[in-house]
Amino acid sequence: MVGPEIERLIQLLSRLPGLGPRSARRAALHLVEKREVLLQPLAQAMADAAEKVKTCSVCGNFDSLDPCAICRDERRDGSVLCVVEDVGALWAMERTGAFRGRYHVLGGLLSALDGVGPEELGVARLVERAQGVEVTEIILATPATVEGQTTAHYIADRLGSAGVTVSGLAHGVPVGGELDYLDDGTISAALRARRAF
Amino acid sequence: MVGPEIERLIQLLSRLPGLGPRSARRAALHLVEKREVLLQPLAQAMADAAEKVKTCSVCGNFDSLDPCAICRDERRDGSVLCVVEDVGALWAMERTGAFRGRYHVLGGLLSALDGVGPEELGVARLVERAQGVEVTEIILATPATVEGQTTAHYIADRLGSAGVTVSGLAHGVPVGGELDYLDDGTISAALRARRAF
Repeated sequence: MVGPEIERLIQLLSRLPGLGPRSARRAALHLVEKREVLLQPLAQAMADAAEKVKTCSVCGNFDSLDPCAICRDERRDGSVLCVVEDVGALWAMERTGAFRGRYHVLGGLLSALDGVGPEELGVARLVERAQGVEVTEIILATPATVEGQTTAHYIADRLGSAGVTVSGLAHGVPVGGELDYLDDGTISAALRARRAF
Repeated sequence: MVGPEIERLIQLLSRLPGLGPRSARRAALHLVEKREVLLQPLAQAMADAAEKVKTCSVCGNFDSLDPCAICRDERRDGSVLCVVEDVGALWAMERTGAFRGRYHVLGGLLSALDGVGPEELGVARLVERAQGVEVTEIILATPATVEGQTTAHYIADRLGSAGVTVSGLAHGVPVGGELDYLDDGTISAALRARRAF
């Protein structure tokens, strides 16, 4: 009914996170309506990204440079590595502006069910980086889920012999969070980690 | 922080309906992660659509053919024209499979505020089509909003001399609709248009 080009566009758009079949149809229509100002530039931007964006061979970040801009940046502290699950977590960390060290992207979490072991995550590569002369601290910033914490514990074990400080993100009450809406685990963790006022 | 290619991708994606800045970021990340299976095909599909999809010079539908597949389809009834606001409405009508005539896409609705007059909608072109030997009925399927109905009334007036039957979609209770959740206007309309059981 809509022609093969639009049909294919809808089908591919519906595979983006956050777009179902209905919103993919609406997005495709919007794109065709704004052919010059949106569809053509977006096609070009996607082709550019597909061609130029690579995975950084040092930390696993996405960038058109390899090593990536963060690994190249001399002003960043090479003595602290922050271990994150994926590039989305790296972006989230960067948005805070609170971390000035470098990263190590695992590309997933340990999962026996999904067949993801230490080899798939390149843990050996991380241990190797941690043994570098410059590195003094590894911050494990995997998510506070069962898989995230299992992965963090495993990596902490493996780093035992690397002679670096291993730390993890603090658990506690989110900024702006009301106790009434928080789960018991978070409140207990915040209570145990209480600090002098 | 994310490199110019990804930055541009996020910025353009966030202009799609249904994607805010946050979901555009997630979509861009997903695209870069699935470079081969999603990003490249989507870039290609968009370039194809930008190059091939045209506006049908007869009815205003989008298709790679001009006249479009619907206007070319000999099995469709050329004696009935359905007037719709935009191609989205045409797609919605086609999904029902209940209409086997042809279309006329206005490309908008009359709006004094937005400076959209009969010239912008090409009403003269519709009147011309209606005067064709084959056409016997015009169905006005503009939306049941104030602007949609104003547009329908204006077009019905202009078609007065064309010697065709002019009809509009029925108002009534949506299929599956409960009276308790319906507005008064719809219930009144359904009551006035009641039919023998």
